[in-house]
Amino acid sequence: MKATRIQSFSDGVFAILITLLVLEFKLPEYQQGGLAQAVLAQWPTMLAYVVTYAYVGILWLFHHDLFDRVTRVTPRLNVLNLSSLFLTTLLSYSMSLLAKSLSAPDVPDVRFAVCAYDALALSISLSYLFIYRYLSRTSCLSASSGPSSGYSDRMRRYPPVSIGLYASSFVAAFASVYVSLAFLAAGIAYHGYAYWRSSD
Amino acid sequence: MKATRIQSFSDGVFAILITLLVLEFKLPEYQQGGLAQAVLAQWPTMLAYVVTYAYVGILWLFHHDLFDRVTRVTPRLNVLNLSSLFLTTLLSYSMSLLAKSLSAPDVPDVRFAVCAYDALALSISLSYLFIYRYLSRTSCLSASSGPSSGYSDRMRRYPPVSIGLYASSFVAAFASVYVSLAFLAAGIAYHGYAYWRSSD
Amino acid sequence: MKATRIQSFSDGVFAILITLLVLEFKLPEYQQGGLAQAVLAQWPTMLAYVVTYAYVGILWLFHHDLFDRVTRVTPRLNVLNLSSLFLTTLLSYSMSLLAKSLSAPDVPDVRFAVCAYDALALSISLSYLFIYRYLSRTSCLSASSGPSSGYSDRMRRYPPVSIGLYASSFVAAFASVYVSLAFLAAGIAYHGYAYWRSSD
Amino acid sequence: MKATRIQSFSDGVFAILITLLVLEFKLPEYQQGGLAQAVLAQWPTMLAYVVTYAYVGILWLFHHDLFDRVTRVTPRLNVLNLSSLFLTTLLSYSMSLLAKSLSAPDVPDVRFAVCAYDALALSISLSYLFIYRYLSRTSCLSASSGPSSGYSDRMRRYPPVSIGLYASSFVAAFASVYVSLAFLAAGIAYHGYAYWRSSD
Repeated sequence: MKATRIQSFSDGVFAILITLLVLEFKLPEYQQGGLAQAVLAQWPTMLAYVVTYAYVGILWLFHHDLFDRVTRVTPRLNVLNLSSLFLTTLLSYSMSLLAKSLSAPDVPDVRFAVCAYDALALSISLSYLFIYRYLSRTSCLSASSGPSSGYSDRMRRYPPVSIGLYASSFVAAFASVYVSLAFLAAGIAYHGYAYWRSSD
Repeated sequence: MKATRIQSFSDGVFAILITLLVLEFKLPEYQQGGLAQAVLAQWPTMLAYVVTYAYVGILWLFHHDLFDRVTRVTPRLNVLNLSSLFLTTLLSYSMSLLAKSLSAPDVPDVRFAVCAYDALALSISLSYLFIYRYLSRTSCLSASSGPSSGYSDRMRRYPPVSIGLYASSFVAAFASVYVSLAFLAAGIAYHGYAYWRSSD
Repeated sequence: MKATRIQSFSDGVFAILITLLVLEFKLPEYQQGGLAQAVLAQWPTMLAYVVTYAYVGILWLFHHDLFDRVTRVTPRLNVLNLSSLFLTTLLSYSMSLLAKSLSAPDVPDVRFAVCAYDALALSISLSYLFIYRYLSRTSCLSASSGPSSGYSDRMRRYPPVSIGLYASSFVAAFASVYVSLAFLAAGIAYHGYAYWRSSD
Repeated sequence: MKATRIQSFSDGVFAILITLLVLEFKLPEYQQGGLAQAVLAQWPTMLAYVVTYAYVGILWLFHHDLFDRVTRVTPRLNVLNLSSLFLTTLLSYSMSLLAKSLSAPDVPDVRFAVCAYDALALSISLSYLFIYRYLSRTSCLSASSGPSSGYSDRMRRYPPVSIGLYASSFVAAFASVYVSLAFLAAGIAYHGYAYWRSSD
């Protein structure tokens, strides 16, 4: 398989997923004359949608930059990549979970939803760590992106930070769901910052 | 990232969104023998679908023409483009809002739905203005489309007009929802006219 | 716009639509122990799905063959093509209409659903006729596919036949919905036959 | 039609299908405070989703490898391929069937759902056998993948094994649904093993 193929398949999955997310943002039930209030009461869904859209968008940019440097595709890389994409598709589920729990706020429910989102985000970061390690161990990366390049230095440094933020969010959920949500948002924002830096 | 990549990802999002819109056009509940009436009573949904399909189609043509002239992709351009696509995906929500409010017409509900659509359309026009400005300021456009070209002249002239039409629709909604809907339709039609002219 | 772009956007819409159709094929409600009967009772949905999938698949093959011969893309061609794709996306709605009316058979309801499907199929055939005429009038077709080629001869001959079959189905619906369904199936089968011949 | 076109259309269908599967994984109804239990009670859906995602992913890899070796596309190949993709899209339905029957376990219902999944998997394996046979009989494969190559040897050997496993699952369902599910999982796992070997 050529490297362009795995990339265009993955790009397709990202494009579809990012567009499908909006389908989870459904019209509310409302009393005649009460459409405005019903829509405004959906702010948790809107918030979860904005955050998840940004997250998937950044993952796409990261994925794209990484696979642009791939020179050889092996069966194992396909399996690693499909597993990573699988975890990414689950974001539409954990987004809905978070939105629903926030719209009828009950502390144990919100805690569960945030922890589920954290666990998923943490797994996605791990999947990129595994992909990156496999690529550098098997010399599937282009010469200029090899183990001693600036790109590789950054790729090794970023996942531990985001994993740390998601793990903190998971633990914090048992003390305060607000602190937990802040750590989750920080993890996603960190991806954005890391992409901004890494693509200089 | 190569310019062709951001374009094919965006094309994918447009193709998916334009096809997903039809999923909002659901079968009505009906009494046996009353299918025809039930379907015909769905005209507001059909109308909102036709208008929104046309709108997304024209946005795709505009986006495509613009990114065909892009010679360099920066992280900031990716962020601007993903933000613009995010607003565009929200059209499926505001389409449903408009369709639902028109099928059980209550003036405050229709007004809210039209204003939501206007605010979204206005934001989309603004996002193109920001993208265009960024591209011309950073010389990311091909030479023949640069700041002093006929293309750029047109690109600078169009967004203010459509923004004006959507703002008028927003304001008019507080006087008459019919006038407001007419301004909204005029804004979308203007995009079609502008595309037709700009691609000569 | 390059010809490959309009083709790959259209291919995307076809691929998405053909895959989305299956979403209309939903699990039935059932009593515990009665799953088999409930699923088998869904044969009208399965039938409508098979027929519509085949129809969209053939339309894609036709569209693809036609746009492979296009050498120049104009704004008007984009508008004609987006209109044709719009009608094609509506097939998922008329498929559901047909499936639902057949599962609780009431003659006026089935007649309405078949006539709606006919009207849509007829409009799609007309849209290809318009596209073909525009292409040959404006010399947007490659030399070997021009007005006097064997390809063009066939393209001129096919739409009138399929339009005739769909019109017959429409009229026949007022006498017998079975005869009407047979004409509709014949129209779709004719597309398959025509594609088979035209791509020799 | 060029070979790259049928491949990119098929890749599109696979990418869309694999992403749409997650839409079947819907939020559960739950009592306030009971979100965690409600989500954990969805394990059959999660299981069916994981298995089906893996299955579609492996089918994509197989399909991709096969069509990479295709040098000529005929109308008959298009029809065979569209038929195979049709069967593949049905996996989203049989996945839901399996998930739903497992969440309210009733032996006849689960048996029906497993047998439906088996019948579909068996048909998909058959469709690849037909495609492979057609390709080798008509010399549409590249020289290095021809009838006497190692690739062809493997392609001839694999489908009978998977067909045997799915047939065993079908028969076993009448004795024990657990044994039947094990055979089904073995069939899908065998595809993974076969891909791993064939792409060496």
